[in-house]
Amino acid sequence: MNIILSRDSQVRVMEDTVTNAEKSFGQFCSLLAAYTRKTARLRDKADQLVKQLISFANTENPEMRATLRNFAEDLAKVQDYRQAEVERLETKVVNPLKLYGVQIKQTRAEIKKFKSVRNNEIKQLEKLEKLRQKSPSDRQTISQAETSVQRASVDASRTSHQLEETVDTFQKQKLKDIQKIFLDFVTIEMVFHAKAVEVYSSAFQTLESYDLEKDLENQRWKISPTQSLWTIRAYHHHLGA
Amino acid sequence: MNIILSRDSQVRVMEDTVTNAEKSFGQFCSLLAAYTRKTARLRDKADQLVKQLISFANTENPEMRATLRNFAEDLAKVQDYRQAEVERLETKVVNPLKLYGVQIKQTRAEIKKFKSVRNNEIKQLEKLEKLRQKSPSDRQTISQAETSVQRASVDASRTSHQLEETVDTFQKQKLKDIQKIFLDFVTIEMVFHAKAVEVYSSAFQTLESYDLEKDLENQRWKISPTQSLWTIRAYHHHLGA
Repeated sequence: MNIILSRDSQVRVMEDTVTNAEKSFGQFCSLLAAYTRKTARLRDKADQLVKQLISFANTENPEMRATLRNFAEDLAKVQDYRQAEVERLETKVVNPLKLYGVQIKQTRAEIKKFKSVRNNEIKQLEKLEKLRQKSPSDRQTISQAETSVQRASVDASRTSHQLEETVDTFQKQKLKDIQKIFLDFVTIEMVFHAKAVEVYSSAFQTLESYDLEKDLENQRWKISPTQSLWTIRAYHHHLGA
Repeated sequence: MNIILSRDSQVRVMEDTVTNAEKSFGQFCSLLAAYTRKTARLRDKADQLVKQLISFANTENPEMRATLRNFAEDLAKVQDYRQAEVERLETKVVNPLKLYGVQIKQTRAEIKKFKSVRNNEIKQLEKLEKLRQKSPSDRQTISQAETSVQRASVDASRTSHQLEETVDTFQKQKLKDIQKIFLDFVTIEMVFHAKAVEVYSSAFQTLESYDLEKDLENQRWKISPTQSLWTIRAYHHHLGA
């Protein structure tokens, strides 16, 4: 029974490979989906910050107003890039991981098929054993059973090779896919971060070149000389001077 | 009463400035605190991804194992930088905004003080009006009341100038602080994104140089020639050959 045991352990290794891949890809899928969602939440908060900056800018002096509006625009630009990041993560990372279930199902079906062929081989062998013990002189029946065993064995061997190929292809595809999915992840992140550096550099310039003195000249509550004179005159009039 | 009306509207502008600053800084504070928290959540998810990558790497062939471990290390490095980003946002952006309440309280106290001085001026003026109507011939009392009005008026004028200075300083500090806080925000973000680009570039190299063929040579379920011969011999022995 050693070839059968060997095939059993072979199948077990294959099943483990598929089960492990299914579990791992499922976990990667939900983790990366969560990572994408958290990124979207961060974008939402930054979008609120953009709105708040614009509404605050409107209450400020001209220089600060212009500075904050430009800064808000840059911050909004980063969020547009973050939105692109979110969409690309969904399309190129999360979805391929989701669709992985299909490939895993096909490989499982192949393994199941092989198991049933192998079970037939075992059944034929057991039948032959019984015949040899029960009627060792019935050459013709034994010969027929031997033919059945050989046929089942050839079947099992062929299916075993098919299965090997299927799992080989599966494993090869899996390794390629892991490489591709994480390369895509890294590329998407890299592009986003590079864009963010670019935009924040411009935002830094904007904020740094803010002209405080110009705004201070325009303080709204400074009593203008005209207003002063007018109010002083009014005061004297009031006092009856 | 025009100078008082003028001072009233001046105080109203100052109060509006402080109230608007208080409200806006409060909103900026809670938005930026939320932004920081969301960033921390993103870091948490990525940390889980790092763990999952390492545990998955352990079940893979040597080349993929090394590739995924290196990638996980890079991803962990990005999270360390994100952690630094979170800490710096808290220290240099969220906390200064939180502490802003103290400055606002001081300015509010100045405004309150000015209001009470101004109320005294109004009271003295009203007293003088009444005296003039009731006993227009009582020169001495009227003269005393006029002195009180003048004194209160000088007081109000001095306090008004103090208030102007306080609110000028407040406004100047506020504008400087806005500039500083958002410059710090932009710098922190810029440093993080630049580091991320650097680390992801290295991660890209790691993933791209993965040697698939080397791993495929080591497929665990390939029946080795030795095993094949041995199992075939065993099979023949089993069949009684």
